[in-house]
Amino acid sequence: MNSTGRIFRVGLFGESHGPAIGVTIDGCPPGLSLSAEDFNEDLGRRRAGKKGTTARVEEDLPEIISGHFNGYTTGAPLTIMFRNMNVRSGDYTGLRDHPRPGHSDFVAQKRYKGFNDYRGGGHFSGRLTICLVAAGVVAKKLLPGIVINARLVSAGGDRDIEKAVAEAVKEGDSVGGLVECRATGIPAGWGEPFYDSVESVIAHLAFSIPAIKGLEFGSGFAAASMLGSSHNDPLLDESGKTATNNAGGISGGLTNGNDLVFRIAVKPTSSISVSQLTYNMKSGEVEELKIKGRHDACIALRVPVVMEAATAIALVDLKLLAENRS
Amino acid sequence: MNSTGRIFRVGLFGESHGPAIGVTIDGCPPGLSLSAEDFNEDLGRRRAGKKGTTARVEEDLPEIISGHFNGYTTGAPLTIMFRNMNVRSGDYTGLRDHPRPGHSDFVAQKRYKGFNDYRGGGHFSGRLTICLVAAGVVAKKLLPGIVINARLVSAGGDRDIEKAVAEAVKEGDSVGGLVECRATGIPAGWGEPFYDSVESVIAHLAFSIPAIKGLEFGSGFAAASMLGSSHNDPLLDESGKTATNNAGGISGGLTNGNDLVFRIAVKPTSSISVSQLTYNMKSGEVEELKIKGRHDACIALRVPVVMEAATAIALVDLKLLAENRS
Amino acid sequence: MNSTGRIFRVGLFGESHGPAIGVTIDGCPPGLSLSAEDFNEDLGRRRAGKKGTTARVEEDLPEIISGHFNGYTTGAPLTIMFRNMNVRSGDYTGLRDHPRPGHSDFVAQKRYKGFNDYRGGGHFSGRLTICLVAAGVVAKKLLPGIVINARLVSAGGDRDIEKAVAEAVKEGDSVGGLVECRATGIPAGWGEPFYDSVESVIAHLAFSIPAIKGLEFGSGFAAASMLGSSHNDPLLDESGKTATNNAGGISGGLTNGNDLVFRIAVKPTSSISVSQLTYNMKSGEVEELKIKGRHDACIALRVPVVMEAATAIALVDLKLLAENRS
Amino acid sequence: MNSTGRIFRVGLFGESHGPAIGVTIDGCPPGLSLSAEDFNEDLGRRRAGKKGTTARVEEDLPEIISGHFNGYTTGAPLTIMFRNMNVRSGDYTGLRDHPRPGHSDFVAQKRYKGFNDYRGGGHFSGRLTICLVAAGVVAKKLLPGIVINARLVSAGGDRDIEKAVAEAVKEGDSVGGLVECRATGIPAGWGEPFYDSVESVIAHLAFSIPAIKGLEFGSGFAAASMLGSSHNDPLLDESGKTATNNAGGISGGLTNGNDLVFRIAVKPTSSISVSQLTYNMKSGEVEELKIKGRHDACIALRVPVVMEAATAIALVDLKLLAENRS
Repeated sequence: MNSTGRIFRVGLFGESHGPAIGVTIDGCPPGLSLSAEDFNEDLGRRRAGKKGTTARVEEDLPEIISGHFNGYTTGAPLTIMFRNMNVRSGDYTGLRDHPRPGHSDFVAQKRYKGFNDYRGGGHFSGRLTICLVAAGVVAKKLLPGIVINARLVSAGGDRDIEKAVAEAVKEGDSVGGLVECRATGIPAGWGEPFYDSVESVIAHLAFSIPAIKGLEFGSGFAAASMLGSSHNDPLLDESGKTATNNAGGISGGLTNGNDLVFRIAVKPTSSISVSQLTYNMKSGEVEELKIKGRHDACIALRVPVVMEAATAIALVDLKLLAENRS
Repeated sequence: MNSTGRIFRVGLFGESHGPAIGVTIDGCPPGLSLSAEDFNEDLGRRRAGKKGTTARVEEDLPEIISGHFNGYTTGAPLTIMFRNMNVRSGDYTGLRDHPRPGHSDFVAQKRYKGFNDYRGGGHFSGRLTICLVAAGVVAKKLLPGIVINARLVSAGGDRDIEKAVAEAVKEGDSVGGLVECRATGIPAGWGEPFYDSVESVIAHLAFSIPAIKGLEFGSGFAAASMLGSSHNDPLLDESGKTATNNAGGISGGLTNGNDLVFRIAVKPTSSISVSQLTYNMKSGEVEELKIKGRHDACIALRVPVVMEAATAIALVDLKLLAENRS
Repeated sequence: MNSTGRIFRVGLFGESHGPAIGVTIDGCPPGLSLSAEDFNEDLGRRRAGKKGTTARVEEDLPEIISGHFNGYTTGAPLTIMFRNMNVRSGDYTGLRDHPRPGHSDFVAQKRYKGFNDYRGGGHFSGRLTICLVAAGVVAKKLLPGIVINARLVSAGGDRDIEKAVAEAVKEGDSVGGLVECRATGIPAGWGEPFYDSVESVIAHLAFSIPAIKGLEFGSGFAAASMLGSSHNDPLLDESGKTATNNAGGISGGLTNGNDLVFRIAVKPTSSISVSQLTYNMKSGEVEELKIKGRHDACIALRVPVVMEAATAIALVDLKLLAENRS
Repeated sequence: MNSTGRIFRVGLFGESHGPAIGVTIDGCPPGLSLSAEDFNEDLGRRRAGKKGTTARVEEDLPEIISGHFNGYTTGAPLTIMFRNMNVRSGDYTGLRDHPRPGHSDFVAQKRYKGFNDYRGGGHFSGRLTICLVAAGVVAKKLLPGIVINARLVSAGGDRDIEKAVAEAVKEGDSVGGLVECRATGIPAGWGEPFYDSVESVIAHLAFSIPAIKGLEFGSGFAAASMLGSSHNDPLLDESGKTATNNAGGISGGLTNGNDLVFRIAVKPTSSISVSQLTYNMKSGEVEELKIKGRHDACIALRVPVVMEAATAIALVDLKLLAENRS
């Protein structure tokens, strides 16, 4: 299903090489001040052009289509659209019979019975994350007092990220990365019973971002090797503050008053110039493939702002749900 | 929200020390052969009594309340209930003012304004996973040809799991563990666009299981250190088979015809006999706490069958969605 | 799907002649005082035993299974169950091959591929409305200041309802009825955009009650014959009060500050003793059928309290949604 | 919530005088042939310009933004947009303080705290039904063998509809109407348990169409006056065919193999030139109001094609749900 959330619902549409991509937010409260300029900063952080990201640069101008009047949200569905302009579809036509390894080419054909828009990954393109970032801008504005900050911690296992990316670019290869996200200022008690734990809601959104292979909260995978006596976080006061934060800010599926902390593993981009083996659907042979086109050497460079957006979207829904329990 | 899924919907109810716990499956197809005996094996795998699990042993007899007639599911909501019998609530009354570190005690009070059933963790109790296992039994029957297998790989970082658990028991401590889950026989092309990627759907369910701190698919966190040229899985034939399986069986959010493989990190049980510090809500002081009662030294021992159930539930919903796309 | 609502979610389970029927309310706020006695009045109003209702009388004792502790709701899923005791399944076995006209017998077999529990209508039985009434009792308690009142206006087109029912009973026939429902004390501005208009939400629930054939708000079908100049309700003050109430308390899909007023048409019970024609699935012939068993001559007699419950359920969800828009 | 359905989900966005209105269909199967021309007929039937409908005429050109490639649906979200061009917002500015009787002006202000786009009714405008009609065009294509036909039966209580409308136009007044909808070719057994009866699903959509005050299936309100012996429809054969169709094609909430038949009551348009009384929010007085602008004298003239669309949308979702039960 292409929408998420219960009160603050965010649905995406569009393909990489279609006329436009967009996002509809259903359930945005009325009276939120919003202008096209508000999107500049986060869209800029996501945008291509830096070393290690693709040479395709779009201006990413947001068109506010609905749910907006006189500078404020109206409470009706808020649709924001981005025209696709800098499109070179010719790059992709040869790839129909040679599904790129690690890419959605093969499964999309199976899933959509050959009718998928394969140009640039179509609806599977990372370009769709622009819409997530745009929804995140709105969501962040609905979370006064909460600061969400994500950053790339390492690339290719190296904390000297620039070096790792430069090497990958040089080789026509790509490299993975580790992103850490931290949110401060969240009160204790947000989250819903069982299935809609805070971890579940964040994980659902995080794993919809392309290229994410792992997610861990607080102590994360280290917890599998720990003893309870060193993992438990001693409670210090009535606000819920704890001496350590192995919980990552979540206990029993609910926020516990401490910083929300989690990390995500981003795989190296599938599209590389290095020659690879793949199955040729026409000839029935496994053959070498060299991919042309414009691609990111380290997609993890763009992920932090997308992960912040997904976190903000999750938190707004949890906040609105928390506010109507009385 | 306490239910999940779109076609095959699974909702839970009940508290650890209330009259009963139960599960309602809405959308189970009619005509599935089902008897109380079908639940024996998986409930037995989950049940307590082994070294390292709590001394509280329930018989876990499933009562099929509805949606079942003459040995078959009817297609109407299928409710399965388990009476709580072996309850000793006296153990817990002292803990209201001393929230146990790492436990839901504190946040549940915040979230539910002090009205939560705190006995044995109430609705937050791991006992609720019986219901998930029961739903998993039904789900597995709806997946002919698919085999789901989860196992505990290590405890306390040690592959000699028995030893690690025995040491924790001896010290009155607890220990975490790593669980790997593998599902074979899934065709390529299951999964929904963007938000309902296969990873998202499984993650949503996995993180609703108490004590899970991390989740990784295929190469997982190792992907963050890899190059694209070694991460990409070369495609070998028309079924989608690949030479390696760094993708963990999922590409572009859809199943790709290879084994679904993922790992989860289980934290050490919060309830330990070792003395700990916590805040005393009455005195306003940080004090020592020693927890009595019956607890698991290694909750990860019980997790594999629960994780299999969650996986089966996710896969059935994805399968039913895949079948009605025509 | 067998559940409804977005915040206050009500799911039903059970069959007429199975072990029990029940209802799970997911999203009930914590801290609501609730006891088994609270259900007496409305369950009594619904119960059989009066002239014109079936001779099957159950005690309808509510068992609160979960979500309830020390006399208050906890905020976790609230499940209320009713054991089926006074069951005489022998009455129904002959009807498998002779689908009763106007009944669900035939369609249930088609829909559930012959696996439906046909005894007493199974999951289609009007008995399930007990669960709706129980959920309505909880919902009414969450609507302080709002009074919901439904009453049977006429039976068989006659305002002397007792007479109309007595005549039907005498003939072994059944008779339809008209129910009017009015709710006072609802503030202006409840309701959601487009699809979740107040009319839509109430209609969705009303038409899930068995035997309802029509629903009209305010002026209703008369509006089709009216002019705008006489249909428009002149606005009188800032609270939204209007001089007339042709709108039935709803404008633009939102509550408008006036009484919510609507009427529903209840068809005559399908099960009658009078001889009828039906298709014999075995012989392939159209044959006469005489139905035995215990049935209502005028199901409309029981509908008012069920309609009140459905209205209360709808209004609680709309209220909770209205409260979290800020 | 501004979307509906479980598999075939239809969400609307936009305001009467904003840049555009649109519809996103999430869950449309891939491989459906679709072109902009396919929308001409139904949009033409809905469009203004006939006697009795507003003088505002838009071209209603559909832009297919996403989910469409090489003439076929792709299976990804299908967004169709209509630019608003022929907008004269000046007409409406004076109405903020004088809420029009029978209109959403007053409640929208309450609901959206004064931030609603009041121009032309904003998101409450009947113009949004263009999007419903567009979604209906897609839905109808997914229902081969099923014919849906709605027609205006009477206006102002008169079967000479043209006369009734002409009189209303002459007086600067408006007039209501009665619409009947019939769908043939639906197999028996569609529909979901309890809450998602076929009546419930259709009613939910029907009452989201502006100006609908009543809905009745088959015998409808007449059923309230009937006896069971004349209301029951004798079953004639294995397909479910009945001698009469008081059920309107639905038994026990499921389609029964006969024509689906229902009627809706459409109120007279609220906007009339005749002088009316309303409350002046500024002066605090009840004053006379004369409405200028371009309006329909009989909105019921446009309703049939909208009702067909809503019916098709409901039926596609029920069909897709019916197909994945195995």
